[in-house]
Amino acid sequence: MDARNLKWWGWGFEDRTIDLDSRPVLWRYLRETLRLPETSPSGVASFEDLDLPPSLLEPGDLAELGRLAGEGNATIDGLDRVLHAMGRGYKDLLRLRAGKVDNLPDAVLCPEDEDSVRRILEFAERRSYAIVPFGGGTSVVGGVEPTRGGFEVVLTLDLRRMRSVHEIDGTSNTASVDAGIRGPLLEEVLGAQGFTFPHFPQSWEFSTLGGWIATRSAGSFSNRYGSIDDLVSGVRLVAPARTLDLRALPRDAHGPSLKELVLGSEGTLGVITRATIRVHRRPAKRRFSARAFRSFDEGLGALRRMAQEDALPDMTYLSDEEETRFLAANAGLPSQGFAPGWAGLVQRASGYRGDFFAQRSLLLMGFEGTRDRVANLRRRASRLARPSRWMGSAPARRAYEERFALPYLRDALLDRRILVDTVETAAPWSKLPDLYEAARGALQNALWAGGDSGLVMCHVSHVYHDGASLYFTFLGRQRAGDEIGQWERIKEAVTRAFLDAGGALSHHHGIGADHAPFLGRVIGEDGLVVLRALKRELDPRGIMNPGKLVVGSG
Amino acid sequence: MDARNLKWWGWGFEDRTIDLDSRPVLWRYLRETLRLPETSPSGVASFEDLDLPPSLLEPGDLAELGRLAGEGNATIDGLDRVLHAMGRGYKDLLRLRAGKVDNLPDAVLCPEDEDSVRRILEFAERRSYAIVPFGGGTSVVGGVEPTRGGFEVVLTLDLRRMRSVHEIDGTSNTASVDAGIRGPLLEEVLGAQGFTFPHFPQSWEFSTLGGWIATRSAGSFSNRYGSIDDLVSGVRLVAPARTLDLRALPRDAHGPSLKELVLGSEGTLGVITRATIRVHRRPAKRRFSARAFRSFDEGLGALRRMAQEDALPDMTYLSDEEETRFLAANAGLPSQGFAPGWAGLVQRASGYRGDFFAQRSLLLMGFEGTRDRVANLRRRASRLARPSRWMGSAPARRAYEERFALPYLRDALLDRRILVDTVETAAPWSKLPDLYEAARGALQNALWAGGDSGLVMCHVSHVYHDGASLYFTFLGRQRAGDEIGQWERIKEAVTRAFLDAGGALSHHHGIGADHAPFLGRVIGEDGLVVLRALKRELDPRGIMNPGKLVVGSG
Repeated sequence: MDARNLKWWGWGFEDRTIDLDSRPVLWRYLRETLRLPETSPSGVASFEDLDLPPSLLEPGDLAELGRLAGEGNATIDGLDRVLHAMGRGYKDLLRLRAGKVDNLPDAVLCPEDEDSVRRILEFAERRSYAIVPFGGGTSVVGGVEPTRGGFEVVLTLDLRRMRSVHEIDGTSNTASVDAGIRGPLLEEVLGAQGFTFPHFPQSWEFSTLGGWIATRSAGSFSNRYGSIDDLVSGVRLVAPARTLDLRALPRDAHGPSLKELVLGSEGTLGVITRATIRVHRRPAKRRFSARAFRSFDEGLGALRRMAQEDALPDMTYLSDEEETRFLAANAGLPSQGFAPGWAGLVQRASGYRGDFFAQRSLLLMGFEGTRDRVANLRRRASRLARPSRWMGSAPARRAYEERFALPYLRDALLDRRILVDTVETAAPWSKLPDLYEAARGALQNALWAGGDSGLVMCHVSHVYHDGASLYFTFLGRQRAGDEIGQWERIKEAVTRAFLDAGGALSHHHGIGADHAPFLGRVIGEDGLVVLRALKRELDPRGIMNPGKLVVGSG
Repeated sequence: MDARNLKWWGWGFEDRTIDLDSRPVLWRYLRETLRLPETSPSGVASFEDLDLPPSLLEPGDLAELGRLAGEGNATIDGLDRVLHAMGRGYKDLLRLRAGKVDNLPDAVLCPEDEDSVRRILEFAERRSYAIVPFGGGTSVVGGVEPTRGGFEVVLTLDLRRMRSVHEIDGTSNTASVDAGIRGPLLEEVLGAQGFTFPHFPQSWEFSTLGGWIATRSAGSFSNRYGSIDDLVSGVRLVAPARTLDLRALPRDAHGPSLKELVLGSEGTLGVITRATIRVHRRPAKRRFSARAFRSFDEGLGALRRMAQEDALPDMTYLSDEEETRFLAANAGLPSQGFAPGWAGLVQRASGYRGDFFAQRSLLLMGFEGTRDRVANLRRRASRLARPSRWMGSAPARRAYEERFALPYLRDALLDRRILVDTVETAAPWSKLPDLYEAARGALQNALWAGGDSGLVMCHVSHVYHDGASLYFTFLGRQRAGDEIGQWERIKEAVTRAFLDAGGALSHHHGIGADHAPFLGRVIGEDGLVVLRALKRELDPRGIMNPGKLVVGSG
């Protein structure tokens, strides 16, 4: 269905991969840090060899769904079903590569418009079939896997054909857009009129407006433009029993916010079909800057002062010492001396030997807007970034330009039998240091259980007046034969550490199936009861995305 | 219960009033504009002459409530009941002055802590008594009137004793505060540690944190700090059936936002007992500036550019031509020539004759923060404010300093038998001009029905990337004997005009009883159904603030 094919077994486009052999410094760094043994690379199952369970949909139903979704837009084709079988978390990639695809939708439907969505929901409710709304399928928390939840048939509703920009209001700087549009097309249409939608999560190339809204996503430059919650002014949700159509307004005092119920609903309440979004004029100027702090703690202090003293850069990315070493290795800088080739030239010119990064915390900053604002904000931020060392603009610019590339690295690491995943949270400033230590400790303990070696690194990428996000990446040797169990133990340990230390269950990945058992810890059992009541009203038969967000008895 | 007594019949402190005789220029302006006949002033009923319906509470119940609320904190005293009988809208003031107080609580309870609140709710639920949570009682939309809604007894729960600041987190810049605290005490406690809570609605001297949250209020300087929704990071709601305790976080992706259900709940779901709020260091610098545009339209254009081009002042207050004339008269500037005394000296020095303001749109701006930010932002805003004329800083500074005084003027106007009320909305920039014309037209038509003269003026005080608020003040001659009917017709006409033109039902006053019949127009009938389901879950017997927010069958 795409101009470029997507990998059914990994991240992104089929014709785009990262080869670790082309990054010898990084590979040596990982081999040494993780004490990797020499092993044969792990392969990917051949699609032809997959043992796919057949669709349980009756031919009559399929024909009916074809009429409802439009000719050729209801399919039980194997590849389509596999492409909609799960998201792109580590657990998903493991299972896909191994050809263990247990939960497949019985059909994939691509409706053309809201009427079609509504008719499909009516049909599914009548038949008691489950429906999984699907945007880009990039969930890393098990948000789109078609688990049956007691339903005999599960249908995945892919919104890709609903991708029109209906109106650009160049006075209000808003646009009315179909929920199935992906980042690049949205940017292309807006760009033709000089606008941008400043929401760039790492999944941006594949994920959709509806997906961003459904999961409360956040992107780079959120310091300036806010998260998706701030960028949506009106929204429509088509649920089995109701339709919420919330007027686009700059602000209102209309009682409890129903918009905020649609945000984060993760497909469990209904299908987000359309939204009014806040667009911005393309910035006249964009500048970058990088600085090296002597410690992560010192960097955190600087970020806090920037946030609280009117000097927060529009984009900030502060890596702890471990991640800084990783980034240096990924950039080709050896841990000692100078790199060969181009990287070495730059390194020599700037006077930083590889070991400079052995004990530093790197802060990347971005600024955009009018020339005047950029200059002023940059000056104010730099002042508060003292006593760090200025590292030029290149590291930040390069990270920005390559911001969608990093997820591809996971496939290359999995090829080498390396466990790799990310977890994220947020907390008030006063709790961040303890949370950081506790989560890092939990990850290390869980990774190192049984004497394995591991790598735990962290960065802050979203900064607020009262706190910030923490984003951990962890790597280790896969335990052959127990890959999923290994991951589950780590995931549970770090999630408990987050919650015990007063952090968020998620800052921007959402809840999905993976975090659902923990949701009561942050919103209370009574909070779960309220969400269930809400679901009963919008989706009385519970057909929408079963097993996600809220689990347990109703 | 207050150190200074409050007027039972009007706005604010008993010992503070505005005398129109001391503002001869304003009084002449109003007399001429409204073509007021010579009449005797309207008096206020004597409290002793009020015919108060007796409390329907049984003595045994009162004793029990005394135990639950604490000794001396459950009262059926007449003055206390009248002070809790309604808010402070025009309709309220009319009825109070005339001694027509039909809806009185059967008792006023002032619990000391959350446990006490919970026990009172349990008691009320058991007895099937209605409960009206009460903060400062400054609602102008009928939000706190103890209408019975089918319940035999209605109890008002005044949160004034729950006013502790439990913790100030000087690292995260947050504070955990009881909901019953009022603006001045909160500011005093925070100020002792160098902090401020930058939320200053016009009711600030009397209204409470819980009230701000319950009504989604907004204050001056919201351009910089946001509205109450942005300033609250965690909140507790004690409802008859459930308790929502939402972890204070800078941001999360915990599914639908339950915090956003508590915000705007207007006492209909439960009692807001405590919140974590975002506090700020007191700004090092505050500056003001005023400019005069040739038209409101031109001023709107400048505000829009400021908002969309990174140059929005922290406080903006743009008056249309009619309001600018009114402000000039209120400042003592005659419509022609020069004022006597001090005002005249200033006027002569600046070279502005009174008639300068006859056809101008006045913009007041405020800036605060670090010296550097203030200077830079002020320069950028001024650049976009061209081609207006700079009017110095005094008008803006004076408006800021007197920002809590204007509501007192209403009592003085009512003394002169003048109808005076305000209505407010918000809309995207592209809809604002038509909305402005439509609402002004609706107000004028309704005011002038029957040949009366009226005055309709408007300002913008909250500005966003995608739109702004509109705040109308209207004055006219009261129709003797039909004062309430006259007001109701005007209110209905302008509300319909707001909604037909795509505006908000309220930008920051809330819904209450007055706007409740219109709520379905902005959130849809299905939206009402969802709110009712939510209420059923939290307040299954419907005892919380009946008749507010959502009305109609459930």
